[in-house]
Formats: sequence, structure tokens, C-alpha cells
Amino acid sequence: MTGFGLDRLSLNQATVKYTGLAEAVELCVRHDIPAIGLWRDRVAEVGLSAAAALVERAGLHVSSLCRGGFFTSFASGDAEGRAAARASNLAAVQEAAALRADVLVLVCGGLVPGSRDLGLARRMVADAIGELVPVAQRLGVRLGIEALHPMFCADRCVIASLGEAVDLALLFPAEAVGVVVDTYHVWWDARLVAEVARAAERIVSYQVCDWVLPLPADALLGRGHLGDGVIDFGPVTAAVAAAGYRGYVEVEIFNADVWAAPPDQTAAVVRERFAAVMGGAGNSPVE
Amino acid sequence: MTGFGLDRLSLNQATVKYTGLAEAVELCVRHDIPAIGLWRDRVAEVGLSAAAALVERAGLHVSSLCRGGFFTSFASGDAEGRAAARASNLAAVQEAAALRADVLVLVCGGLVPGSRDLGLARRMVADAIGELVPVAQRLGVRLGIEALHPMFCADRCVIASLGEAVDLALLFPAEAVGVVVDTYHVWWDARLVAEVARAAERIVSYQVCDWVLPLPADALLGRGHLGDGVIDFGPVTAAVAAAGYRGYVEVEIFNADVWAAPPDQTAAVVRERFAAVMGGAGNSPVE
Repeated sequence: MTGFGLDRLSLNQATVKYTGLAEAVELCVRHDIPAIGLWRDRVAEVGLSAAAALVERAGLHVSSLCRGGFFTSFASGDAEGRAAARASNLAAVQEAAALRADVLVLVCGGLVPGSRDLGLARRMVADAIGELVPVAQRLGVRLGIEALHPMFCADRCVIASLGEAVDLALLFPAEAVGVVVDTYHVWWDARLVAEVARAAERIVSYQVCDWVLPLPADALLGRGHLGDGVIDFGPVTAAVAAAGYRGYVEVEIFNADVWAAPPDQTAAVVRERFAAVMGGAGNSPVE
Repeated sequence: MTGFGLDRLSLNQATVKYTGLAEAVELCVRHDIPAIGLWRDRVAEVGLSAAAALVERAGLHVSSLCRGGFFTSFASGDAEGRAAARASNLAAVQEAAALRADVLVLVCGGLVPGSRDLGLARRMVADAIGELVPVAQRLGVRLGIEALHPMFCADRCVIASLGEAVDLALLFPAEAVGVVVDTYHVWWDARLVAEVARAAERIVSYQVCDWVLPLPADALLGRGHLGDGVIDFGPVTAAVAAAGYRGYVEVEIFNADVWAAPPDQTAAVVRERFAAVMGGAGNSPVE
């Protein structure tokens, strides 16, 4: 297997940012998209059990819940901040269980407030994941460590390469902790294919979107539809498939223009591009 | 040795972007800065021999010439583009020799126009460096491969981590090819200290500036004076010193506010921060 068919397509809710959960669910059904990636704030708007019922009634699979993490958002002496982060993450694990999500995505957090110590931040991340693992195991939830692009290292995620995420995941039992491969964050890495192979059964989510030039003023929003940017999806997709990943492939796009488009148009483009790019042949040369 | 004294300070000309070469040289002399990093466009303005005479008369050491590279800026069939890139790089090596620069900094180039193939771009970089090496050897110039931050991978430099730069440099003789360690580009890397140690005598330039949040609209300009951002200079500086590097440490800041400041103020801040941060103790916690 070198690619993924449309039966593996999942729409991450963030791609249609301005739709609520019910609308996003209906959109997936209307466009024959079999899975959805949910966000906690949108789930909270309708309530956890109502959200679970909505996706279940629609026959949708929940490929991920976004997100837990931000384990470093409090200074080291701040017991209250630590307790709040822990409570939020425990709730996230419970929500992921209730929604039967394949994975709870973890965005681990940047530098600790008042500190430049990357080692400290990375140790806090490992400790916090260690605290979550027993709960995740009890509830049957898999935690997915997502390496974010190094440009977010300071303020969002000190886990800045897939290799680092794999090293971290390997500290924990495989049934509880894996890694998220997101093309936007890791496409540049000369070690990518080797690290995907090393990750093997630890890959718990494959998220895709393109890297679009020029970088927008808000660096968070420089993502595009598959094929609109420079990422060569063929090799990484083949590597993810060869590593044994058989789960859903989530299209997750943060982009002001995509958000401004009608959701039905976005869903149609997502589906069309997915079929063209993820089937195994990869994408064609840039025009 | 764990740090660098003011006798190792070099001012990269780009830090005072709006000064010509003669002014920048005078600025260094006035502020007792013993070395300067030059840019080819500023050298060209006064002419190569005049530039060489200027820095020599001032008693300044030329710690680098910026820059060669952009080896991938032409499509694979474009013989003319290839010839132009090669001619420009040959001229850059000759200029580095005439200026007695410690290193010609190479910014290797992004994806090849019309292509998404990172492997192709990386092979073209290796080939082009291989073509330059005999010339560099004949003229006694060292080429410094600079890993740029992964956010520049698509459009400026496919060599996106220090490890990759080291792997590439090791393909060539040590006297001809080394690596540039620039804190701005590599600070996020969990493998940084290990890669600096592996680079050892291949380190031919150490450039420093800080990573300032938030990222500005133009991502190229998010650099700051040492201490204004989040980089923990102590560990990387200690690693560079432990690896045996005894050359100059260039302060190179791309930042609209720094460029707008009076050059004398900038030079004074550069000197003061360098003394505070690079002496061996590193910088203090963020206030």
C-alpha cells in the first residue's frame, strides 16, 4: 500500500472554522466524508453527550480530538497553574473516551513562562504525559504527541521534530502514547522518512495540509489545500503507509481564505484534492 | 573555555543595514569591535580592492563574507541559470579570498523552481558545493554551509538543521568546507549540542542573535539583540567553545527596529549584550 483512499478521509473541524459541530457533521455526511476531527471548544458548545450522540447518529468516525497539552504554561512554582493544566488534560482524556476518538492530540507547550530552558520545558512535558498515561490506559484513549514546526518552539511546542516526538513516545507504553505526523510541521526534515519508519505502530494520526508561500503575517495560518503549496506528499504518505498506519488521514487547514470560503466549497475541494494527491501517486510537479 | 570575550566580537554588517562599508568599518573602530562580517553588495559599492584596503587600514579582521549559495535557483534544464549561479559563486569565492575572510557563508537555496523535490534540491546543493571546492582550495577560502531555520526551507535553504549541514560538509575536505552555527536558525533543535560536538573543527563561523516573539509579519526580521528574546545562549556557546571553535562570534541581527536605530547606539548595545551574555555564564532567566 502506498496511499490512502477516500474511505480514509477525515475532515478536521478546524478546516471549517466557523461552523459549529452539528453543521460540520452534516457537512461530512453531505460530502461522503467518513470521519471527523473534533475540537474541544466546539464539543463544549453542544455538550459532550450531545456531541457524541451527534457523530454517532451520523455514522461518523472520530479520528481525533484536538487537543490536550500546553503542559508548560505555568511557572515551575505555580501550583495552581499546574493543577489547572492537569485538570484540563484529564478532562480532555475523558472527552476523547466519550467521543471514541482514535487519539487525543497533544500540543505540548512552549517555553515555561520566565524561562529560556528548553530542557526544563521538555522534562515538564514528559512528566505531564507520564501523569496522564494511567488515566488514558484506564479509559482506552491513545495520546498523540504532535511535533510542531520549529517556528512554534518558543510559544507552542518544544517538541520540534518528529524524531523528538518518537523518542518521547517510546518512554511510554505503545497502547497509550503515539505520535501525530502532520505534513505541515515536518515536511522539511531530511530525517522524515527514517523517523516515520522508526515511529512504526506509534503513528496514531496522520494530518495533512500544504505549506503555502509566502508565509502570512500570522505564521499559524500559512496552510493550504493539498496541492496549493510546496509539499511533496507522495514520499511521506508512502512512508506512513509502509510504517503500517491504516487509520484516517485528517485534512486540517488553518488559512483565512479557506475559512472565509463556503464550507460546502471547502469540503468539495478537500475531497477532490485528497483523491488526487493521497491515492498513492503523490502530487504532480508545481505548474 | 566556556565562552567568548570581547576580543572575539564581530559585527555583521547586516546589523547596521543602512550604513555603507566605510561607515560600518569606522563604527567598529569607534566601538573597539575587532572584526566585521561583510556583505557582497556593500563590498561591490566601494569596489573589491578599495573594500579590502579599507578594512585592512582599519586593522579589522573579516570574519565572514555573506554570501554565496542559492544553488537551486534555476530549473534543472536551465543552463543559463545554472551558469549564472556558478559565476556568481566563483566571484564570491574570489572576493572572500581578496578580503581574507575567514569564511564564505553559503545560503544554499530552497526548492528548485517548478519542483517539490527536496531530494533533488539537496543533490543540486551538494553538486554545486563540489564544483566550488577546488576553487576554494586553490584560493585558500573556507566555505561555510549555513543551516537555515526550517521555516525558510521552501524558499531559501533546504539545509534545515545543523545535523544536515554537518552531513553535507563531511562529504568534502575539512580545510575547504565547514558549517556556520547561527543561534537564530538552530536554537530549537533537541540535537543541537550533539551536532555541535559532531561538527567539531568543521565549525567555521558562529553567528548569534536572539529569537524574539511574536514573529513579525516578515519572518526574516524576527531577530533581536542578545537577551531580548528566548534563546538560552549559555549551553550552545559552551558547546561551540568545547568543540574547539576559537574564531570570531558575529552578531547578525535582521530587525526593522534595530535597523532604524542610530548605528552608534546599535553598536554599543551589541557590545554590551555580548559582554553580558557570551562571556561564559550565559544569560539570566527572562525577567
